Amino acid sequence: MIGQQAQDSPIPLDQIHYNEAGLVPAIVQDYLDGTVLMMAWMNRESLQKTIETGETWFWSRSRAELWHKGATSGHLQHVKALRYDCDSDALLVSVEQVGDVACHTGERSCFHQIDGAIAPPPADTLSQVFEVICDRRDHPNPDSYTCKLLAGGDNKILKKIGEEAAEVVMACKDDDPGAIAGEVADLFYHTLVALAHHNVDLRAVYQKLQERRR
Amino acid sequence: MIGQQAQDSPIPLDQIHYNEAGLVPAIVQDYLDGTVLMMAWMNRESLQKTIETGETWFWSRSRAELWHKGATSGHLQHVKALRYDCDSDALLVSVEQVGDVACHTGERSCFHQIDGAIAPPPADTLSQVFEVICDRRDHPNPDSYTCKLLAGGDNKILKKIGEEAAEVVMACKDDDPGAIAGEVADLFYHTLVALAHHNVDLRAVYQKLQERRR
Repeated sequence: MIGQQAQDSPIPLDQIHYNEAGLVPAIVQDYLDGTVLMMAWMNRESLQKTIETGETWFWSRSRAELWHKGATSGHLQHVKALRYDCDSDALLVSVEQVGDVACHTGERSCFHQIDGAIAPPPADTLSQVFEVICDRRDHPNPDSYTCKLLAGGDNKILKKIGEEAAEVVMACKDDDPGAIAGEVADLFYHTLVALAHHNVDLRAVYQKLQERRR
Repeated sequence: MIGQQAQDSPIPLDQIHYNEAGLVPAIVQDYLDGTVLMMAWMNRESLQKTIETGETWFWSRSRAELWHKGATSGHLQHVKALRYDCDSDALLVSVEQVGDVACHTGERSCFHQIDGAIAPPPADTLSQVFEVICDRRDHPNPDSYTCKLLAGGDNKILKKIGEEAAEVVMACKDDDPGAIAGEVADLFYHTLVALAHHNVDLRAVYQKLQERRR
């Protein structure tokens, strides 16, 4: 479904407002969790090649040449959807990033630093929470509730999933919006702990959900 | 936790590479689901005001003046985190968007069109699936599995949540990564149907999860 949008509705090449250098900024975003991977520039030709090939092409301002992203590194970007903004002067490209590395530094995203410190960029809330849980798993801290759960293994974690599922059911039966949001948050959190415990990436879950949408 | 990053580690104003017009592109992203809301331009002064006030300020190229986003419309953006990329020539601003409307057209995001058709921009997978479920709820189609579930009401939906939770438990006990990802996808999907049935927004769940991280 998402994958077809780019082909079904190509960007109107001549409607895009290119700047005085003939370029338009293109924001590249992961199609699964919404992480902004990079920003680069396209001219009319690279935009056209992006639409035709389904892979991203940019204009390298430093080398003054067309740049097929990943042609050298292997880190190609498969285009899932291509959008332009209300002023037609910026593009948003939703991609499947081969190798899950977009930045030339080897980091996943070019936006990986805050004043020199490495800080992965924001994606969706569930991915952020999952990242914290995996960090607790890899760097245990006895005071952390997550670490206590993980230390209890499947029997402790899975018991909580049953419990939280029952609490979602009760909150829905009570038709209490605040309780429903809170209990679903608990169910999601404990399910993420189970994923981390079994070394299953949340992205694998997202992929299953995307496959079923097609 | 997220909210503190901007204050803890301000962007080094003089390290940013402004272009020949003294501007740097700023990508604005929703802090809950990763939706790209808009792209605008900052100069050194607007970046400094953004850091100082915790709200976004841009440079309006058309009006050639500082622009406090939302000052007129009320649709302010509260900054949650501020990042710059590996070349220091692009900014990524994670925000809480007041009114959930960033675009002057009244749409949530400026990137709302694909060749003229309205198509909300990609955010995370769970939000995309939730959007489809809400659309099925509001525009029923008798052949859709989601519609059949919704028509069955709480007793049908909640029974599935119990069932899917049990299947997550079994897949974990089998330590089968593929089955775990698939069963968690099923549990998430059916939980989203319960949310849609009770008119509870997935964002409310994300907010609960974010509050607990602080």
